[in-house]
Amino acid sequence: MNYPNGIKKKKAPSIISYKNRGMTLESDLNESNTYYKENKIAYIYKKPTPIKLVKVDYKKNLIKEAYFDKPSTTDYNGIYKGKYIDFEAKETTSKTSFPLKNIHPHQIEHIRNINEEKGISFLIVRFTTLDKTYLLRGEDFLYFIDNENRKSIPLTYFNDKAYYLKSTLRPRVDYIKIINQIMEVNK
Amino acid sequence: MNYPNGIKKKKAPSIISYKNRGMTLESDLNESNTYYKENKIAYIYKKPTPIKLVKVDYKKNLIKEAYFDKPSTTDYNGIYKGKYIDFEAKETTSKTSFPLKNIHPHQIEHIRNINEEKGISFLIVRFTTLDKTYLLRGEDFLYFIDNENRKSIPLTYFNDKAYYLKSTLRPRVDYIKIINQIMEVNK
Repeated sequence: MNYPNGIKKKKAPSIISYKNRGMTLESDLNESNTYYKENKIAYIYKKPTPIKLVKVDYKKNLIKEAYFDKPSTTDYNGIYKGKYIDFEAKETTSKTSFPLKNIHPHQIEHIRNINEEKGISFLIVRFTTLDKTYLLRGEDFLYFIDNENRKSIPLTYFNDKAYYLKSTLRPRVDYIKIINQIMEVNK
Repeated sequence: MNYPNGIKKKKAPSIISYKNRGMTLESDLNESNTYYKENKIAYIYKKPTPIKLVKVDYKKNLIKEAYFDKPSTTDYNGIYKGKYIDFEAKETTSKTSFPLKNIHPHQIEHIRNINEEKGISFLIVRFTTLDKTYLLRGEDFLYFIDNENRKSIPLTYFNDKAYYLKSTLRPRVDYIKIINQIMEVNK
């Protein structure tokens, strides 16, 4: 209801739990990438979602009608110590497995190409209900795809093959630390 | 005028000169990147232009109002032999110099970052009136920016420092050939 003089009654502030702070994987990664950039550690960017333009008023720089397109590559790429870094980040509410429908066939092909070209390719998967985040290397992801007929990757596969990404303060998801380990091993 | 039975008189075909075939630098680079991808040579993509969304009907996947944003990085990036590749492509109608207003300050900073992180960074500049295309390495571009007060890079600087990119049939602009030379020298 409206109060006199146009004053609106404020809603009582809701109790904010840790889970509701809106710490999505995407915002965690954006914060981490900003941290890496500001500290001159790595330059990783999220690609804009591709958009199919239908009606554009170029004089006004205004898009009047457009649609979101499916990305044919992964969401993030960039550079660390001269090497090409490429990954996809996904959240799932499942407690037991990561559904493969989250990754399009074009993206799987892209991960395969990057892997063959000796890039550093991986998935970052967060099981939101469990509050657990993993880094799964491209080669381990492809091994599963090529050898299993299942429609999802079980959590046990992540526990066996993936790197666990502990939440930290700054950067919130320090995946470059893991990449550094992987690069040291591959030297 | 309309002829009977709805038949319209066709316009006489205009004489098509080589210059008018619509071979813009962007289409040449898209074709070249497709060639590299299909032949498993390199994976280089043009990033979508960032867009600022204003009104979106997410149910219909429809963007009703949005604006083009200025890119803060370069237009193209990807991987060749494990190395990170990053470049900006620009055309100019000038016959004597490349105007620096074509490159935003954020992009210059980005080129500097990629260069320091040991990525392979460069500009591809086409002087459309002269029908000449050059690849200027990031370090030579930054050297000019840091040591000259001029608002454009003269063609003579390109002739001295840049690599000339001959037009070929397939790929149309074979810049990876030059990158290969540069990587051999830096080994």
